[in-house]
Amino acid sequence: MSYNKAPSITAETINPKVKIISYEPCGQIARHAERLQQEIEENPGSLPFQEITYCNLGNPQALGQRPITFFREVLSLCDNPTLLDKDETPSLYSTCAIKRARMIMDSLPSKNTGGYTSSRGIKSLRQAVADGISARDGFPSDPDDIFLTDGASAAVNLMMQILIRSSEDAILCPLPEYPIYSASIILHGGTMVMSITNQEEIVEFCRKEGLVILADEVYQDNVYAENKKFNSFKKVARSLDYDENDLSIVSFHSSSMGLYGESGRRGGYMEISGFGTDVKEQIYKVASVTICPNIAGQILTSLVMDPPKLGDESFESFQAEKEKIHSSFWKRAKVCNLHFIRIDVASLDTGTKNTLEKAFQSMEGISCNKIEGALYFFPRLHLPSRAIKTAKAEGVSPDIFYAHRLLDATGIAVVPGSGFQQASGTTHIRCAILPDEEKIEAMIPRLRAFHEAFMKEFRR
Amino acid sequence: MSYNKAPSITAETINPKVKIISYEPCGQIARHAERLQQEIEENPGSLPFQEITYCNLGNPQALGQRPITFFREVLSLCDNPTLLDKDETPSLYSTCAIKRARMIMDSLPSKNTGGYTSSRGIKSLRQAVADGISARDGFPSDPDDIFLTDGASAAVNLMMQILIRSSEDAILCPLPEYPIYSASIILHGGTMVMSITNQEEIVEFCRKEGLVILADEVYQDNVYAENKKFNSFKKVARSLDYDENDLSIVSFHSSSMGLYGESGRRGGYMEISGFGTDVKEQIYKVASVTICPNIAGQILTSLVMDPPKLGDESFESFQAEKEKIHSSFWKRAKVCNLHFIRIDVASLDTGTKNTLEKAFQSMEGISCNKIEGALYFFPRLHLPSRAIKTAKAEGVSPDIFYAHRLLDATGIAVVPGSGFQQASGTTHIRCAILPDEEKIEAMIPRLRAFHEAFMKEFRR
Repeated sequence: MSYNKAPSITAETINPKVKIISYEPCGQIARHAERLQQEIEENPGSLPFQEITYCNLGNPQALGQRPITFFREVLSLCDNPTLLDKDETPSLYSTCAIKRARMIMDSLPSKNTGGYTSSRGIKSLRQAVADGISARDGFPSDPDDIFLTDGASAAVNLMMQILIRSSEDAILCPLPEYPIYSASIILHGGTMVMSITNQEEIVEFCRKEGLVILADEVYQDNVYAENKKFNSFKKVARSLDYDENDLSIVSFHSSSMGLYGESGRRGGYMEISGFGTDVKEQIYKVASVTICPNIAGQILTSLVMDPPKLGDESFESFQAEKEKIHSSFWKRAKVCNLHFIRIDVASLDTGTKNTLEKAFQSMEGISCNKIEGALYFFPRLHLPSRAIKTAKAEGVSPDIFYAHRLLDATGIAVVPGSGFQQASGTTHIRCAILPDEEKIEAMIPRLRAFHEAFMKEFRR
Repeated sequence: MSYNKAPSITAETINPKVKIISYEPCGQIARHAERLQQEIEENPGSLPFQEITYCNLGNPQALGQRPITFFREVLSLCDNPTLLDKDETPSLYSTCAIKRARMIMDSLPSKNTGGYTSSRGIKSLRQAVADGISARDGFPSDPDDIFLTDGASAAVNLMMQILIRSSEDAILCPLPEYPIYSASIILHGGTMVMSITNQEEIVEFCRKEGLVILADEVYQDNVYAENKKFNSFKKVARSLDYDENDLSIVSFHSSSMGLYGESGRRGGYMEISGFGTDVKEQIYKVASVTICPNIAGQILTSLVMDPPKLGDESFESFQAEKEKIHSSFWKRAKVCNLHFIRIDVASLDTGTKNTLEKAFQSMEGISCNKIEGALYFFPRLHLPSRAIKTAKAEGVSPDIFYAHRLLDATGIAVVPGSGFQQASGTTHIRCAILPDEEKIEAMIPRLRAFHEAFMKEFRR
């Protein structure tokens, strides 16, 4: 007979920092959505909608975005390089992809993609990333300042591990934030403080105070506004004539976001400029505790930063695929702007304009900033006091209450704004603009109908 | 003019825990080896050897081991699934791989491999892993207890993050250890204590004391001893009639080690049995801070645990490739055992025996346990006191001194035993048995010649 003793590890006895953190994009609404998804699969027709619309996470390919052909061809060839010598291959793969895959394979110390690499990533791939940064910024980038990483999240965690000594160390962070920052700061024992957000001000302030800039630049390709463009923090600093003796900057980028949305591949890099060799060695050491980033992600990151160029055989098809994604995001941003804020009708093309102008009507109790970049809108909800009271009675905050109701009624999964540390006393939801134009136009009336019913129910 | 202020982050101002840790398999000897490698490339003939023999890291494919064809075919098809519908594909890929890739693609919620997945991994792949564990142990495994991870290292870090609250929490660890344990325990603020090593004793002790077993089972396929086989901790516990109400066990496995050596792919899993739903939810939450493990690694892990079976078209070729790797490791273990310990000559096949018996001569000042599993030998060095004094004068420990000398003289990179917390007052090196039989037979005389010269130099 065994002597039963309950295991000693419970949610009460684990690391209390773990208990405190929250990561709402994959949090309670996301998990409730997964349960509903299972319900739909097991009992079709049992819910008032046929599918879950996952607008909680910036996860383009989960909502039907196609990967870039060139990227996937190169990955596929590097996985199975015996193809490079087969007669059938040129009929199945573009010349460009074959050439690039061969170049990558030749540059690997062991000529295969199964070995551990250097903890900061394969040198030739870091070189490709550095070249891409130099071309983007017009200022040089050194491959020895590049660390390839398993997505930007791993890089953020690594830097927090390096920088935070105790709760006396504070990280200034603009709010609303992306929750990896608060989670990582809490897990590493630091303190988060709200910061200023103007790029040049930040550079001046950090230079004067000797602070490190951690620049989350994963949406550098996602700009949907005329006359606006991405400027990296390093470029801003260099343009102000500050070099690496003046200022330490870490830039995070990833193959998950941007236009390509290769999220599940966990590719990314950080560029660390303005750090001494001693600190770089410590970063290298911490990176080596997990030995190296995954190779497919390393390759993908090099392709993102060094895609086919004018003159390359694949350039036109690559450019067309990229443009299609970009213009689709641009259109979706416009549709959402149109519905959630009272502007921008004039800038629509005539067809869309006519259709939508008729339908257009800004929603009661919603105000929203214009979407000019990234993948999300973040409308503020001005809810009736009875809704707020009901939420309180149910023991949840109003944004969680609203997001739950929205999901149960429509199958649309969003993230409660409190997951991003919305301003105290305000109520927001975050919704990714990932469904394609057609679907987003179908989704918004459902969202509107829910919202109107919700407002009506609680206004009484 | 810019006002120059040195950046405030130096090795003195970073997290002191980072400064303390060491990770010697990628540490000073490894980095010195990389510098020598560069020297060889830039000035061929400038060193007394033509290549670096990397025996510092368990990294089989970096030393020429070929990947399993079936695994790479499946990965390649999942990267570029348009191939699945091409007429040429059946001539390029095995039917088995095509079938498996199609099954995996169909099981993905978004039917593609570019999206974020659940933070614990794709359900169908977790099911494959659980099925593999059930078949291996003869006890059931629940896919909801499986977390797919970016290699075993990521899983170890995750569990340390969950379990360690402060330096009052101790992790019992057998010594010599693999240094991710000490590094991860230090980074998470815990305390490491040396433990007992008998499997049944550990189970009984942990059950009585209510302790969690963290079982590093990444070498479960690497056993090179007659009449010995791998038994998982879970199997041992279940065989003693302890169920998940009695004991919490976490088992780590990886696609990096085992026989397949897909190290750079960062695939792995942990099976957590005997934890409540509340703890599992906290583990899920911490996993979600980096969103999800990389998809190629997830797929690979499912293939490792659910490879082609008897009756499958690819079974024989898969089995042959696997057997070839296994028997090669077995032979290498024998060669090393023969040279480093005075036993086992009888068990060699006649050819090898005749060649080696002539050469056989155990080395002065070296004693070594027999290699019966994993990828390494860990000889103890009994060095002359003058060598120890010289090391001290140079400010390094004798093992580091010896490993540096070995690398500079022969190009063989090993890891100083202090990187694994060798017993105090002893001197060891760790050497991976990765060069193939031919190369390892060529390497050992070089190692021997170096060792004899070293002993002679310091005995005088």
